[in-house]
Amino acid sequence: MEFSSKLIEQAVHHFSRLPGVGKKSALRYVLYLIKQQTDEVNDFSDVLRALKQDLKFCKTCHTISDHDICDVCANPLRNHQQVCVVQDYRDVMAIENTGLYKGVYHVLGGLISPMDGIGPANLTIESLVEKVSEGPVQEIILALNATMEGETTCFYIYKKLAGFEVAVSSIARGIAVGDELEYTDEVTLGRSIQNRVPYTNSLVK
Amino acid sequence: MEFSSKLIEQAVHHFSRLPGVGKKSALRYVLYLIKQQTDEVNDFSDVLRALKQDLKFCKTCHTISDHDICDVCANPLRNHQQVCVVQDYRDVMAIENTGLYKGVYHVLGGLISPMDGIGPANLTIESLVEKVSEGPVQEIILALNATMEGETTCFYIYKKLAGFEVAVSSIARGIAVGDELEYTDEVTLGRSIQNRVPYTNSLVK
Repeated sequence: MEFSSKLIEQAVHHFSRLPGVGKKSALRYVLYLIKQQTDEVNDFSDVLRALKQDLKFCKTCHTISDHDICDVCANPLRNHQQVCVVQDYRDVMAIENTGLYKGVYHVLGGLISPMDGIGPANLTIESLVEKVSEGPVQEIILALNATMEGETTCFYIYKKLAGFEVAVSSIARGIAVGDELEYTDEVTLGRSIQNRVPYTNSLVK
Repeated sequence: MEFSSKLIEQAVHHFSRLPGVGKKSALRYVLYLIKQQTDEVNDFSDVLRALKQDLKFCKTCHTISDHDICDVCANPLRNHQQVCVVQDYRDVMAIENTGLYKGVYHVLGGLISPMDGIGPANLTIESLVEKVSEGPVQEIILALNATMEGETTCFYIYKKLAGFEVAVSSIARGIAVGDELEYTDEVTLGRSIQNRVPYTNSLVK
């Protein structure tokens, strides 16, 4: 794609680096922004700059927060003995939206993925081990993606925590609510048979 | 969607206003940017600001340009007697990419669309009429979308130019190259029969 304007080219370059955005969509966004009010676009520009400058991460659980300690970690009503390990901020939001979890979180910031050059040292696993060794943590719930990277990371954390007196559990894998048995893949169906639960448990909403 | 951080909420708000971007994609973009280098994100922020501050539009054809007169209008080798009327900058790029057009352009900046509150006064139609009345323009080629808005705008421009000695043509509507007759809609097929061309013409690549 050739552009008659350097500025447009630069703007398209930046937008097209976003995940899942191609050059055509990027140009569409740029042309949309050109038509907007100057104030609106300047606000957008300021917010982007602030993202790197002003954004804070919770010192306890490493999630994105406006304060040094996030609202969940600062809440005395949450169960601080139960730590749910997740990949990123979106997963915290997803679990919070269920309204069923009353413990606290630990955000890894990614998953172990040698293909992408992400090793254990790039994640907050050390900080999790420290938390377990120091604190009153009784249960670690691994809530990571059911992918190769997720499983690898689960296993690594499990091994790291082997010497401590802490229960390590993983969220259930199985047939999604509303799904039909017939169309479920073999691995998922196999797992959900192996990890069957007493009937009364499965009625808990 | 509830966010634990005001800053994230603002950033998601801005991204989700872009055409075709929902809140989930917006959050994905924001989380991606947080992981990028500060310089990279600051550059992005600067480019956005520059979009409204420094972007110029060609004084002759109203397309986006880095100069007062765009490269096409400033090129003496282009045919300045032939003016192709298009909706926006993307259409200029699309036609330039064909490599088959040697005339100049006139960018309307939109299409007449009462539903969206866009009337003839919001477009550069007056400037087109001026160009025709003053200049050496011999042919106006209407290259607008084959939609209701495009057809309305074509008709409006055609009426406006009725008093001048200028040929007004419209780009051919018909079956796209590579398409099958069977799956073409009736209106398009009907038009392509009405506007059939001598066989030799249709071989021009």
